[in-house]
Amino acid sequence: MAFKKHHPSAGSRPGTLVVSKTSPPTRIDAIVYTEKTIEEHTSVSVESLASLIGDGHIAWIDVQGLGDEAVLRGLGEFFSLHPLVLEDVVNVPQRPKTEEYDGQKLIITRMVRLGGQAELDVEQVSIIFGANYVLTVQERPGDVLDPVRRRLRDGKGPMRRLGPDYLAYAILDAIVDAYYPVLEELGDYLEQLEDQVLTTPGAEVLQRLSRVKATLVTLRRSIWPQREVANALVRDPSPLITDTVRVYLRDVYDHCVQTAEVAESYRDLVSSLMSTYLSAVSNRTNDIMKVLTIMASIFIPLTFLAGIYGMNFEYMPELHVRWAYPSLLFLMFLTVSGMLVFFRRKGWFGTPDEPGRSKH
Amino acid sequence: MAFKKHHPSAGSRPGTLVVSKTSPPTRIDAIVYTEKTIEEHTSVSVESLASLIGDGHIAWIDVQGLGDEAVLRGLGEFFSLHPLVLEDVVNVPQRPKTEEYDGQKLIITRMVRLGGQAELDVEQVSIIFGANYVLTVQERPGDVLDPVRRRLRDGKGPMRRLGPDYLAYAILDAIVDAYYPVLEELGDYLEQLEDQVLTTPGAEVLQRLSRVKATLVTLRRSIWPQREVANALVRDPSPLITDTVRVYLRDVYDHCVQTAEVAESYRDLVSSLMSTYLSAVSNRTNDIMKVLTIMASIFIPLTFLAGIYGMNFEYMPELHVRWAYPSLLFLMFLTVSGMLVFFRRKGWFGTPDEPGRSKH
Amino acid sequence: MAFKKHHPSAGSRPGTLVVSKTSPPTRIDAIVYTEKTIEEHTSVSVESLASLIGDGHIAWIDVQGLGDEAVLRGLGEFFSLHPLVLEDVVNVPQRPKTEEYDGQKLIITRMVRLGGQAELDVEQVSIIFGANYVLTVQERPGDVLDPVRRRLRDGKGPMRRLGPDYLAYAILDAIVDAYYPVLEELGDYLEQLEDQVLTTPGAEVLQRLSRVKATLVTLRRSIWPQREVANALVRDPSPLITDTVRVYLRDVYDHCVQTAEVAESYRDLVSSLMSTYLSAVSNRTNDIMKVLTIMASIFIPLTFLAGIYGMNFEYMPELHVRWAYPSLLFLMFLTVSGMLVFFRRKGWFGTPDEPGRSKH
Amino acid sequence: MAFKKHHPSAGSRPGTLVVSKTSPPTRIDAIVYTEKTIEEHTSVSVESLASLIGDGHIAWIDVQGLGDEAVLRGLGEFFSLHPLVLEDVVNVPQRPKTEEYDGQKLIITRMVRLGGQAELDVEQVSIIFGANYVLTVQERPGDVLDPVRRRLRDGKGPMRRLGPDYLAYAILDAIVDAYYPVLEELGDYLEQLEDQVLTTPGAEVLQRLSRVKATLVTLRRSIWPQREVANALVRDPSPLITDTVRVYLRDVYDHCVQTAEVAESYRDLVSSLMSTYLSAVSNRTNDIMKVLTIMASIFIPLTFLAGIYGMNFEYMPELHVRWAYPSLLFLMFLTVSGMLVFFRRKGWFGTPDEPGRSKH
Amino acid sequence: MAFKKHHPSAGSRPGTLVVSKTSPPTRIDAIVYTEKTIEEHTSVSVESLASLIGDGHIAWIDVQGLGDEAVLRGLGEFFSLHPLVLEDVVNVPQRPKTEEYDGQKLIITRMVRLGGQAELDVEQVSIIFGANYVLTVQERPGDVLDPVRRRLRDGKGPMRRLGPDYLAYAILDAIVDAYYPVLEELGDYLEQLEDQVLTTPGAEVLQRLSRVKATLVTLRRSIWPQREVANALVRDPSPLITDTVRVYLRDVYDHCVQTAEVAESYRDLVSSLMSTYLSAVSNRTNDIMKVLTIMASIFIPLTFLAGIYGMNFEYMPELHVRWAYPSLLFLMFLTVSGMLVFFRRKGWFGTPDEPGRSKH
Repeated sequence: MAFKKHHPSAGSRPGTLVVSKTSPPTRIDAIVYTEKTIEEHTSVSVESLASLIGDGHIAWIDVQGLGDEAVLRGLGEFFSLHPLVLEDVVNVPQRPKTEEYDGQKLIITRMVRLGGQAELDVEQVSIIFGANYVLTVQERPGDVLDPVRRRLRDGKGPMRRLGPDYLAYAILDAIVDAYYPVLEELGDYLEQLEDQVLTTPGAEVLQRLSRVKATLVTLRRSIWPQREVANALVRDPSPLITDTVRVYLRDVYDHCVQTAEVAESYRDLVSSLMSTYLSAVSNRTNDIMKVLTIMASIFIPLTFLAGIYGMNFEYMPELHVRWAYPSLLFLMFLTVSGMLVFFRRKGWFGTPDEPGRSKH
Repeated sequence: MAFKKHHPSAGSRPGTLVVSKTSPPTRIDAIVYTEKTIEEHTSVSVESLASLIGDGHIAWIDVQGLGDEAVLRGLGEFFSLHPLVLEDVVNVPQRPKTEEYDGQKLIITRMVRLGGQAELDVEQVSIIFGANYVLTVQERPGDVLDPVRRRLRDGKGPMRRLGPDYLAYAILDAIVDAYYPVLEELGDYLEQLEDQVLTTPGAEVLQRLSRVKATLVTLRRSIWPQREVANALVRDPSPLITDTVRVYLRDVYDHCVQTAEVAESYRDLVSSLMSTYLSAVSNRTNDIMKVLTIMASIFIPLTFLAGIYGMNFEYMPELHVRWAYPSLLFLMFLTVSGMLVFFRRKGWFGTPDEPGRSKH
Repeated sequence: MAFKKHHPSAGSRPGTLVVSKTSPPTRIDAIVYTEKTIEEHTSVSVESLASLIGDGHIAWIDVQGLGDEAVLRGLGEFFSLHPLVLEDVVNVPQRPKTEEYDGQKLIITRMVRLGGQAELDVEQVSIIFGANYVLTVQERPGDVLDPVRRRLRDGKGPMRRLGPDYLAYAILDAIVDAYYPVLEELGDYLEQLEDQVLTTPGAEVLQRLSRVKATLVTLRRSIWPQREVANALVRDPSPLITDTVRVYLRDVYDHCVQTAEVAESYRDLVSSLMSTYLSAVSNRTNDIMKVLTIMASIFIPLTFLAGIYGMNFEYMPELHVRWAYPSLLFLMFLTVSGMLVFFRRKGWFGTPDEPGRSKH
Repeated sequence: MAFKKHHPSAGSRPGTLVVSKTSPPTRIDAIVYTEKTIEEHTSVSVESLASLIGDGHIAWIDVQGLGDEAVLRGLGEFFSLHPLVLEDVVNVPQRPKTEEYDGQKLIITRMVRLGGQAELDVEQVSIIFGANYVLTVQERPGDVLDPVRRRLRDGKGPMRRLGPDYLAYAILDAIVDAYYPVLEELGDYLEQLEDQVLTTPGAEVLQRLSRVKATLVTLRRSIWPQREVANALVRDPSPLITDTVRVYLRDVYDHCVQTAEVAESYRDLVSSLMSTYLSAVSNRTNDIMKVLTIMASIFIPLTFLAGIYGMNFEYMPELHVRWAYPSLLFLMFLTVSGMLVFFRRKGWFGTPDEPGRSKH
Repeated sequence: MAFKKHHPSAGSRPGTLVVSKTSPPTRIDAIVYTEKTIEEHTSVSVESLASLIGDGHIAWIDVQGLGDEAVLRGLGEFFSLHPLVLEDVVNVPQRPKTEEYDGQKLIITRMVRLGGQAELDVEQVSIIFGANYVLTVQERPGDVLDPVRRRLRDGKGPMRRLGPDYLAYAILDAIVDAYYPVLEELGDYLEQLEDQVLTTPGAEVLQRLSRVKATLVTLRRSIWPQREVANALVRDPSPLITDTVRVYLRDVYDHCVQTAEVAESYRDLVSSLMSTYLSAVSNRTNDIMKVLTIMASIFIPLTFLAGIYGMNFEYMPELHVRWAYPSLLFLMFLTVSGMLVFFRRKGWFGTPDEPGRSKH
């Protein structure tokens, strides 16, 4: 849960790259296409990039894994990235943002997938695009962009006809839309938890609720700045984004807002479940107390009565009366009955509010 | 409770329609009117729309049910809808919003009705209008627009005299005003719950309160963006909306604000009832504890006294004293009286705060 | 508590008036004045209004009661009110707001008085003024405007010298200033409740606190939009309001802000009292538990000891020892003393925090 | 605690002064100075003011006590105060604000001092300055302005060289800086309370916490609008304030922000202490419960065993066995030991979290 | 925890320096460099500063310790600091801010390091830079700026090539980046606390949580205004900051936002842990209650039965029945069994929600 950032030690030179030893090795794939043609290259070297990028076609350079500093520096040089851009791309996580350097647009996004147990797998995807290329840098292999690749291969629709800004949009759109299935799964999980809160309100449920809440907070914190990114892309004038694509980006913006709102409403739901949980615990305490009080209130007075006639005083006339014993038993029966009537009046039996029987 | 959106799988082409198998079949009705005349057509086909729309009269094309992709695509083509507009209309729910494409205004709204048990039935209604037509698309048959249809048939007032912007306003107004009865019913329901919280504070009441709270949150989330929509319609310059109609739209805006505020104040009320509930549970625990403590505190010492004289020591002079037994009984009586006085002093009997007796 | 608005059924024609059968009958009074003269007319008819309004003098037409649709429609026609203005004036409650139609300024305000039991009596007062008249419409007879009437009769100060905008200001000012005594009364009531929370923290106190809280929320919701109204009147350019009067309106604005802040701070106080209340309940439970635990912990072991020597074993040598009984009694005394010391060490007696003895 | 404003009855003429009978009598002091000279006049009359104010020197007229309406009206006339300004100055409390009337700047501020028991003594100080005078009006005698007077007498620094705007700044600065010692004292008091929460968490501590919280809220509500005042003085163009003084006013603004933040952080601390308090109460309940449960669980079964052999059945063979009694005692010892082991396993003894022993 | 500011007594002359006796003595170090050369001077006197600052090279004057008023005043004169700037630099803490006086830029920042026990060591660092110098003033010796000094000695990168604005940026960047390790350590500490909350939920854990919360609040309050500072430096036009450096300052801004967000998310986590803690305490109470209730409910009725047959009535036929005793024992066995079944049905044994066994 602790925040781990690949940040250089405080005070080091800006542009310092922090390459963790556990980062997967860097691998570069490329898709080069025109409206009519498409070529795919896998595991290309930085040196061969020069032959892939050029006028008349668009190149999508997809980098996965941040383990190889030399390759990353090579990429930085090849694309003339500003040292701070390279730092943002490599020293993950950065806050989602968009910036424009001369002839290049940088978009930093956060891709989410749901691991087991309502835990989020969050990964930074940086998108940099210029006149005839799109460069994406991912922390790890594996992503949600396969449908984009398929649409490129297909060649239908505006995918290959429009420029790198459309491809960048398509990638951003895929990343944002991947929040929907995550939210749906969380929604289903919350429905399960809602049942559990009412039927088996133990410590574990609360822990699960806390965990979902943390997940939802993370989710919202991922979406919210992405919304600002989408908004900036729609609004800020830039020669790199055509008006045609701006319309599509407005759609991305709408999806960001909607997912943020759903995450928000789930958080409300979790809070509400938490207070239901606490109330269920209180009710349980009440139930336990009732059992104890009923048992004790009935039997303690009876035991006292029995104790009275267990005393060894010489002069206790009742002891010698023939009907004393049955009379006492009858008195005890009356006491118990009185108690039961009292408790029933108090509404301590057959509580009419048992969740199982509720109908509303 | 889980959020279910008809969203295409992440990364698919923008404009992809997601038609659920459970969606009702699509049905198109049309009302064609001039200031003097009115014609109604039911279950028309997409092909026959061309004959209904034209200069000199206004056509209201009302589409109900999102089950038939071909028909929906046909509508999209006929009205030259942007692929993203068609997506917004079909892949429900979208956040309420308004957008203008060339010659067309899109308004996405949310219509609510109250089902049983304080549950909301929320449905997206999309309104698209151009120079001489209004197109409404609803998720399901059944709506709150019958009064609008009646006013069209009537022909009184400005209804048939003014243009499609007025019709669009009338539809939007009917949708927004339908929030009032929903709020009133919720208000009545809350009054009932307020009684229950005080008289029978069981788990069920809390559950109902949570449910109403969720409903109110949903309601507010539906109204709030609609307020922005109304505001944008009033404020943003558009050739499609005349100044006459803008005045009316300002009225819609006021109603949105008012309903949002009422929903907000009901939420405050629910929170307040929840804390009253929790306090009622605490008070119950207190009551149970009091009964237990009183019973135990009175009888446990008495039992001890009885136990003393139940011992079988050979040399216990009291046992042979003639008045020992009655004296002990008297001592016990004194003990009980002392206890009762103590508890009364503590204010444990006849608590002066029983809700039934309160007068303020 | 439920929100009841006189709203027309959803979808009805804008301008539809909803006249409730329980509304008091409509009655029109008029005060016609110049700087030198003043005439008062009571229960005038709509038809005779024409003779009252004219150049050279100012007429204050005061309408009380919304029960007579024909009269209200007549007024609307006479003053050429926009249908939506008439709707706002009649279909109460509307949110406080100000709007300007040609030659007329509409101000919708909310007048409050305190009924018994901290319940608010809220009434909409609509103020419409033009070049030479002020029209006020109230829901019911009875208002806080008598001092304004007296100042008109007096004729001192700028009251009769300045135009209808000053009269409208004076009315608005009287309505806003009427919030002060309400707040003061609520403040006194809260002081009472504060005592009760500490001395008799029963369910009733909590209920009263909730009710005051609801009242404060209503109050704040009434004041807040009125603040915006005052601000708009000060700021928005309008030929109907002179600069002289604008200075006075700024004063109204200040009062709105101040009352809103006082209401806000009372709400904080109520929340604080609520948590004090809950804590008082917890402390009570603690106290009850302590009594129970002390009683049980002292007597249960003693009873056990007595039980030991109540057993009927044949071979229990202690039973026949001469000093066994007094020795046992002494042992019991030691046990009790030990217990008492233990509990005193735990700080369970003479808790040093009793509110009565606190000095800080 | 209730809010008491000297407000005129609703609807009265603007400019109505409300002079409370408990207000101290009005007393006017004056300091007249040039860069070289200084004269002090005490208890001057309104009539003699004319001789004190003039070109070539600056006069600080200091009015203390709001009990004398005639004097206050005289002042108003002498300085040609707008009726509303006079009302703001006399009918305290007003919200801190700044306004400019022709040739005069009005600043309304709130001076605080700490009375006993963390209660604030809040007093309105109105500062009005023009070309060659500064008029201050205070509710009561006694203030925090003596250092300003001393600096005037000293004559060092820019105090007597610069104009009335600098004097007004110096007064405002002294009033704002007087918040620091109040905050420090509250901070020390909170540290004490923090200890008490952990050592003696009784009802009194909670009450003290609530009171400090209320004080902090009042404090923040006093500071916050003063921040706006300082900001407006820095920012709004005015011929009455020179650029030299504006730089100093920015410093006042910074101090307002800082004091507001400290008050805010103390409020957070109080909330945090309150939840610690509630948790301490819960833990106490737990402790009490543990003692009860341990005592009851150990002795109730033993008493039962003793009860068994206290029965008077004719045929109970154990009673006649020689080693029965010691065997039973041994069995009882085993039972107790088992219980103790069980409770130790549960971690009910020597809880490792006693605050006293914590080291972190 | 109490706020201690070196503020002059209220009303004293602006520019008054408050030098605490506990402040470390003032010591001045200097680094003088050009692109090619670098000289370091330690413990220089104010008088010798004149020889260090001049055209053609840049001087970093680093002042540590605020104990020597004469030296501080000397510095103020040498650098012609405005009295208020000197006051801000010396009378710590000030709120982080940036201001520009003629030819000088003032940046007030807050440097944090983590002491033991999650306590923050916060120190004000003031940065003032002009055309050819950077002056830093620190409260105490010791800082996070050694890497900056090393980079200066190194001479690689733009460090010595660019002007004093770049040096000021490098110092600011080092201070902001030092928040990352603090946050990481807090994150690790929170992970530990999370375990403790579930395993040993005692009063100490809550106290630790409160302390971390306070630390996080302090942290956020330090970062937030620094974000505004960075933003102002990026945005406000100033001849003292070149566009090259502005790009780097944007990076500082991003880091401020990110650290603020992490601090924020940790605060959410702490709140969540606190509610988990409270719930764990409730669950414990429940557990204790269960043990008590089970023990009491089982043995109290049995003791009563034993009491019955311990009575000394003359006529109790059961006492003389041969199989009465074993029958009674059997009845007791049945009672216990019934109770155990009842409690098992209630789910009071082997609670299925023990955190240890949870798998989700």
